Amino acid sequence: MEYRPIVGITMGDPASIGPELCIRVLSEKKFYDSCRPIIIGDVHIIQKALAAIGQEGLKLNSKTDVESKLILNSVTDVAAAKFEFGTLDILDMGIARDATPGKISANTGEASFRYVEKVIALAMAGEIDATVTNAISKEAINLAGHNFAGHTEIYAHLTNTQKYSMMLAHDDLRVVHVSTHVSLRQACDLVKYDRVLEVIRLAYNACRTLGIENPKVAVAGLNPHSGEAGMFGTEEIDEIIPAINQACSEGILAEGPVPPDSVFPKARGGWYDIVVAMYHDQGHIPLKMEGFVYDREKQAWAAVAGVNVTLGLPIIRASVDHGTAMGKAYKGTASAISLINAIEYAIIMAKNKN
Amino acid sequence: MEYRPIVGITMGDPASIGPELCIRVLSEKKFYDSCRPIIIGDVHIIQKALAAIGQEGLKLNSKTDVESKLILNSVTDVAAAKFEFGTLDILDMGIARDATPGKISANTGEASFRYVEKVIALAMAGEIDATVTNAISKEAINLAGHNFAGHTEIYAHLTNTQKYSMMLAHDDLRVVHVSTHVSLRQACDLVKYDRVLEVIRLAYNACRTLGIENPKVAVAGLNPHSGEAGMFGTEEIDEIIPAINQACSEGILAEGPVPPDSVFPKARGGWYDIVVAMYHDQGHIPLKMEGFVYDREKQAWAAVAGVNVTLGLPIIRASVDHGTAMGKAYKGTASAISLINAIEYAIIMAKNKN
Repeated sequence: MEYRPIVGITMGDPASIGPELCIRVLSEKKFYDSCRPIIIGDVHIIQKALAAIGQEGLKLNSKTDVESKLILNSVTDVAAAKFEFGTLDILDMGIARDATPGKISANTGEASFRYVEKVIALAMAGEIDATVTNAISKEAINLAGHNFAGHTEIYAHLTNTQKYSMMLAHDDLRVVHVSTHVSLRQACDLVKYDRVLEVIRLAYNACRTLGIENPKVAVAGLNPHSGEAGMFGTEEIDEIIPAINQACSEGILAEGPVPPDSVFPKARGGWYDIVVAMYHDQGHIPLKMEGFVYDREKQAWAAVAGVNVTLGLPIIRASVDHGTAMGKAYKGTASAISLINAIEYAIIMAKNKN
Repeated sequence: MEYRPIVGITMGDPASIGPELCIRVLSEKKFYDSCRPIIIGDVHIIQKALAAIGQEGLKLNSKTDVESKLILNSVTDVAAAKFEFGTLDILDMGIARDATPGKISANTGEASFRYVEKVIALAMAGEIDATVTNAISKEAINLAGHNFAGHTEIYAHLTNTQKYSMMLAHDDLRVVHVSTHVSLRQACDLVKYDRVLEVIRLAYNACRTLGIENPKVAVAGLNPHSGEAGMFGTEEIDEIIPAINQACSEGILAEGPVPPDSVFPKARGGWYDIVVAMYHDQGHIPLKMEGFVYDREKQAWAAVAGVNVTLGLPIIRASVDHGTAMGKAYKGTASAISLINAIEYAIIMAKNKN
């Protein structure tokens, strides 16, 4: 039988759409053919979410293959999981007291944080092969005294990683960021030779882990038209081009600086396997143009697709690309595409690492 | 009969795809039903382009309705134009000596510049109702001693306009820019109350000119997540929010600052009529993701759609959203969609102004 990596999936904030997404997505048989999934969360919250959405709710936004009733298997150890389709294995952490849909608290924050801490520990110990995270509330984890900007920072801290980067992906469009949650002015300051080179290498390695033999890496410019030979902005000349040259001398097929407004349609068209973006929105805007579809009539997102992968960690981490969507919690209507994409990415990376 | 505005279309650089695009697009009958088009250029260049692409070439990327032979009508005065389908009216400037496809020179630069100068003069004098421009080469016009960054600057200079902005549009997605061809650092410096307010007003007026009764204007943030209440970047608090408040007090439905990575899918979905972007690539990336399609096999652009409109001028100006594409000149294969879009936009604006 084909190798099926064990994928630990955190439940996300108990008050969010996370619990129901776990249930709905794992009612698809295909995931049990390609991996061994286990939820890290609280079993009574999963029970509550299942009751709220009902058997009918399983069908929304994902194709359920569960004929009768989904069985919940509460375990305290990965070894006790069944990994059988029709049974939902949950590593019960016993932290969340209750959850009011959409209402965060110090307790939901504490629970969200501890699931993440646990999934990292399991991966570091080799008990699971990959980790997937559902959305947490920054406000809630901070209420619980965990002062992190988000998952990426928690992972970096707990795995003692210094050189990492956020990759966003949607189908064949992949973007890795030189910086993320800093002001645009500070982002300009962070475009430095060392960091650009580091991110080019991370991008190259990420593609290799995804099974791309000889990845073609595009490096975007920082300034409009990549500065037009120094006419507006010199970061391309001073920092980016030297980093590209060094990467090329290491055998990486790196190209650029490519003008920021044409590099993404080219990458989507298959000309590049991955794009190194110089700042948060340079990478996020094209990804969300590709994965997010807004419904005019309903005034809501009709599709929210995309995966967020942290590169540079000693373990595998893929995540949904959306927030906690508190307003939709326990209704069974939130888009499950991003979680499906995240699990698929985690499986591919685990298989290529194996 | 319906009002048909006179639209002056510059031929663009004689060595570029401009001449053939004019011919191909004006072989569609529909334009003669909705406007009275006249080319500002050189008749012997148009003749050469027509000979190069042939009658068959008319059909590429646009639907020709010309049954037999397209007649060229060389005039020296707009009043002498026929404005009849099947006849191509050309205001012959007698400047370009010859054109080698793809080869720019001081002469092609001089010609390109003079067409633009002429079309502006005609519009300012009220002899034509709207202007449409094909691409020129910045290098060529500079070789000819005209030191401008591009059309926008030439238009602003010759019409003595101080407050203007570049709008890009593709279908219902419209973006107006606070700044364009400056470094990203300088773009951050240019996010000031006065300028943001000015561009919100220009955006609002543009929508009105397009026939949108009560336009909804989105104002993007500058920093990721619009700075998250000052956590990373304070331009939103110091400059953008006060400008939005002022615009609202003037009766403009302005909303924001909307996070830069979600505002564009929302606008595309119809939630906003127009987006005020804080810098070149913030607006250009989503527009090109929408309008540009790259062909993996051919390693070339399969579609290049979009319109560039200069707002704030006393006259109407719409333009193609692509460059001179010198490598494709005189082959009859370049995408004509952008020129078609530009003429359509010019017609709508002229009709709403009338």
